[in-house]
Amino acid sequence: MKILFIGDIVGSPGRNMVSDYLPKLKEKFKPQITIVNGENAAAGKGITEKIYKEFLNLDVQAVTMGNHTWNKKEIIDFIDDAAYLVRPANFPENNPGKGIIFVKVNNIEVAIINLQGRTFLDQHDDPFRKADELITQAKKRTNIIFIDFHAEATSEKQAFAWYVDGRVSAVVGTHTHTQTADERILTNGTAYITDVGMTGPYDGILGVEKEAVIKRFLTNMPVRFEVDAKGRNQLNGCIITIDKTTGKSTNIERILINDDHPFFG
Amino acid sequence: MKILFIGDIVGSPGRNMVSDYLPKLKEKFKPQITIVNGENAAAGKGITEKIYKEFLNLDVQAVTMGNHTWNKKEIIDFIDDAAYLVRPANFPENNPGKGIIFVKVNNIEVAIINLQGRTFLDQHDDPFRKADELITQAKKRTNIIFIDFHAEATSEKQAFAWYVDGRVSAVVGTHTHTQTADERILTNGTAYITDVGMTGPYDGILGVEKEAVIKRFLTNMPVRFEVDAKGRNQLNGCIITIDKTTGKSTNIERILINDDHPFFG
Amino acid sequence: MKILFIGDIVGSPGRNMVSDYLPKLKEKFKPQITIVNGENAAAGKGITEKIYKEFLNLDVQAVTMGNHTWNKKEIIDFIDDAAYLVRPANFPENNPGKGIIFVKVNNIEVAIINLQGRTFLDQHDDPFRKADELITQAKKRTNIIFIDFHAEATSEKQAFAWYVDGRVSAVVGTHTHTQTADERILTNGTAYITDVGMTGPYDGILGVEKEAVIKRFLTNMPVRFEVDAKGRNQLNGCIITIDKTTGKSTNIERILINDDHPFFG
Amino acid sequence: MKILFIGDIVGSPGRNMVSDYLPKLKEKFKPQITIVNGENAAAGKGITEKIYKEFLNLDVQAVTMGNHTWNKKEIIDFIDDAAYLVRPANFPENNPGKGIIFVKVNNIEVAIINLQGRTFLDQHDDPFRKADELITQAKKRTNIIFIDFHAEATSEKQAFAWYVDGRVSAVVGTHTHTQTADERILTNGTAYITDVGMTGPYDGILGVEKEAVIKRFLTNMPVRFEVDAKGRNQLNGCIITIDKTTGKSTNIERILINDDHPFFG
Ligand SMILES: [Fe+2]
Ligand SMILES: [Fe+2]
Ligand SMILES: [Fe+2]
Ligand SMILES: [Fe+2]
Ligand SMILES: [Fe+2]
Ligand SMILES: [Fe+2]
Ligand SMILES: [Fe+2]
Ligand SMILES: [Fe+2]
Repeated sequence: MKILFIGDIVGSPGRNMVSDYLPKLKEKFKPQITIVNGENAAAGKGITEKIYKEFLNLDVQAVTMGNHTWNKKEIIDFIDDAAYLVRPANFPENNPGKGIIFVKVNNIEVAIINLQGRTFLDQHDDPFRKADELITQAKKRTNIIFIDFHAEATSEKQAFAWYVDGRVSAVVGTHTHTQTADERILTNGTAYITDVGMTGPYDGILGVEKEAVIKRFLTNMPVRFEVDAKGRNQLNGCIITIDKTTGKSTNIERILINDDHPFFG
Repeated sequence: MKILFIGDIVGSPGRNMVSDYLPKLKEKFKPQITIVNGENAAAGKGITEKIYKEFLNLDVQAVTMGNHTWNKKEIIDFIDDAAYLVRPANFPENNPGKGIIFVKVNNIEVAIINLQGRTFLDQHDDPFRKADELITQAKKRTNIIFIDFHAEATSEKQAFAWYVDGRVSAVVGTHTHTQTADERILTNGTAYITDVGMTGPYDGILGVEKEAVIKRFLTNMPVRFEVDAKGRNQLNGCIITIDKTTGKSTNIERILINDDHPFFG
Repeated sequence: MKILFIGDIVGSPGRNMVSDYLPKLKEKFKPQITIVNGENAAAGKGITEKIYKEFLNLDVQAVTMGNHTWNKKEIIDFIDDAAYLVRPANFPENNPGKGIIFVKVNNIEVAIINLQGRTFLDQHDDPFRKADELITQAKKRTNIIFIDFHAEATSEKQAFAWYVDGRVSAVVGTHTHTQTADERILTNGTAYITDVGMTGPYDGILGVEKEAVIKRFLTNMPVRFEVDAKGRNQLNGCIITIDKTTGKSTNIERILINDDHPFFG
Repeated sequence: MKILFIGDIVGSPGRNMVSDYLPKLKEKFKPQITIVNGENAAAGKGITEKIYKEFLNLDVQAVTMGNHTWNKKEIIDFIDDAAYLVRPANFPENNPGKGIIFVKVNNIEVAIINLQGRTFLDQHDDPFRKADELITQAKKRTNIIFIDFHAEATSEKQAFAWYVDGRVSAVVGTHTHTQTADERILTNGTAYITDVGMTGPYDGILGVEKEAVIKRFLTNMPVRFEVDAKGRNQLNGCIITIDKTTGKSTNIERILINDDHPFFG
């Protein structure tokens, strides 16, 4: 079975890339399941119910999140009813939402987990121990387990992937908004990539207008960050092939669409 | 003209990869200049004079460093005599060593600069302003300016690259030990990649034995980190093509050699 | 000569404490110069021109700032005309405002410097080297040099104080909003306290409503922080006695006014 | 009932201060229980079995720790047999040692808890939720609950204290090595101080030779940190009076002994 994953979708440029290319990617790769990271979908930070539903209308099976989960306040009102919205499972227990969901396709169940790293990021519960707990829970229903590990540090992401290697189908990193070239199948069958990168502006900085980010570094003064909506866009993702019986992955391929890497159907 | 750059060389596994593949890479790409990042060359942290000279003997023209510059104490004794060793230029002014060197090849001068980012890293002088100063200095002698920007955060690296776009030939990121897939020529002619990745163990975590790193994340207790010398290795780098008159780059290509990506000469 | 210093004034509760007690403190201690830290004076973050002028009207000679300098945008419009407003001198050179001012009282000049630490705080220029430069500049005019060192880490504050010991009259720490009990005259005559504490709510957390801060720690979700305006207040400061010829300090005394430590005139 | 607490004891200077002054403090204050923080007792980092037993021989009832718990490796061998050694309870569950102990004196049981903050410190489990759990556990046996909250940020310490106010007898902060002047009884009867400070060198920086710490800030190069054993010393602590039936505190008094604040018996 194949899972298509699309990295942090940033604002309307990112959403437009998804609506433009998702049909073509589905035609090319024929995934049974499509997952997108939506933590930046609403104007660069957070997600709204409207956008979440737009993703479902594009036949997306799950939307994962990250450190920007709560940036749009309305999420608190709809997250508990949003069956396909997954936020980091290691957020405090009192938080609304859920960190694991199960999606059924062709009678096969897939567990989709979202976890957040701690190094250089917010102070949450230990994602390693939380993964142990969720994997045990998921294994009762399925061998096919997909994890979006939202984290900053390459060390933490790689340590996590090796830690769960052979126990889950895939660990896909998000958050740095920059695709890494280290996609591989780890020794025991887990597909891994440190970061799939972002989907949105191609000439901004992590999706934000570059002039503002540069000004911030030069002055250390407050600067308004806007999604760079004036230029070219990109789509970053990956496609993973999983043995539906064992849950082991046999292939992971990066997807990178921009002016320097045009899409070939 | 072509510059070959090899990312953070980690311990003897990394040094062996360099001695094995550098001749082949030179034959394939025919670079005029080879630069390597050596901050992890001695047992994973720092560099010794012996190793520095081994690099020169392999016909390397410059060795750049980073946050591990001072880990091997003996560097303090030889750095001021090491004409081709470049450490981050934005270290405090009182530090030994130099942050810019000039190398002459076929009568063309190339400025080689090392700078270190500050986000999630040590507190040094502003690398953006230091770059302005060094670029001005370099431009008096040459248009060909190569910068190894050693930093953690993707935002800082990309902001820096866009900031100097068109003023330098290349900004090559190091430090995360994970190659990114975003190599490109920026709008005004600067070749850029967020991180070229590391050269050394392929099955460790950033070059370190994975069992130790995982144990550290699970326990938060002190763990001895050793270079993973028991397994397979990799080499990460890039090759940049620069117009020798304008100093603008026309091409940047990633180099990735490991069991999943064997070298083809 | 005596300098009265009042620590981070937080919102209207803090400003009210200053207007209530400053006349009494002046009567009691008879300082020639009064300096207040105003970085939190406007609703907890930043300062407005109106509030700055209110301080001057209370016969305050200088207002120092810190990491919240730019929180109220209007400061950018008036800071360059505000002769008695001092912001951290080690902010980037391109920033508006000034990091050192000179105040003359009874024909004696006093240099007032604001610097910001870097540990656990923003990435600015090295405050140690900047201090060297400013002390040299100040010494041409006066031996009486007062420094508000705005910083988080006790190590950085104490290292800084010992570094300039004997070269300045006083190093007074701010930013943690919690008064320390380590006031002393260092070996070479510099008066020092790690933090003078804050002026404002007594039952909040650093001046903010405690319910909100606790909720933030429990949930990691966004929470609106408001100055705690409903309860009791406090004033924190210190009074320093300086030999007007040598610039050495002979005494530093903490000032702490709250319901548990009522003011005695 | 009275509890005497002595803040982070640093190396032999700190241990000497304890052996010199503990008898005098006991005579003066007549505490039923003495607790010391020992995380820096062995040469500035960690603790040995020998030193732990020396503390017990001085009639200390409990030794608390902090982020330096594991610095001396031998602790792993003796911690599980050390009935009166308490390390942060929110360390990972797999860690040796314990985070809560019960001490009986005159037939009254006292629960002693050690917790570590996370802001600007290591990534551990949530100390707030862990406190809830331990308080529930302790309340089954006693109302007298003492917490050493080892943390860096004043906001986290104060938020924690207000969070448990009325549920525990005392929250005493440690780690910054600098005594704060904010000791008080909170609204619901919990004694609180943000930091009791350290016991050891008086002219060093947090106990370390000041020349080395300053050099580190000036150069950012590796520097060897040694306990400042050549000069004057200090002792920092506090004495808390608790109603033995309700477990509420009625008084907290700072203890500060150094050349500027000589001890009066
Ligand atoms: Fe994102
Ligand atoms: Fe993120
Ligand atoms: Fe490195
Ligand atoms: Fe590095
Ligand atoms: Fe403040
Ligand atoms: Fe501040
Ligand atoms: Fe300590
Ligand atoms: Fe500590």
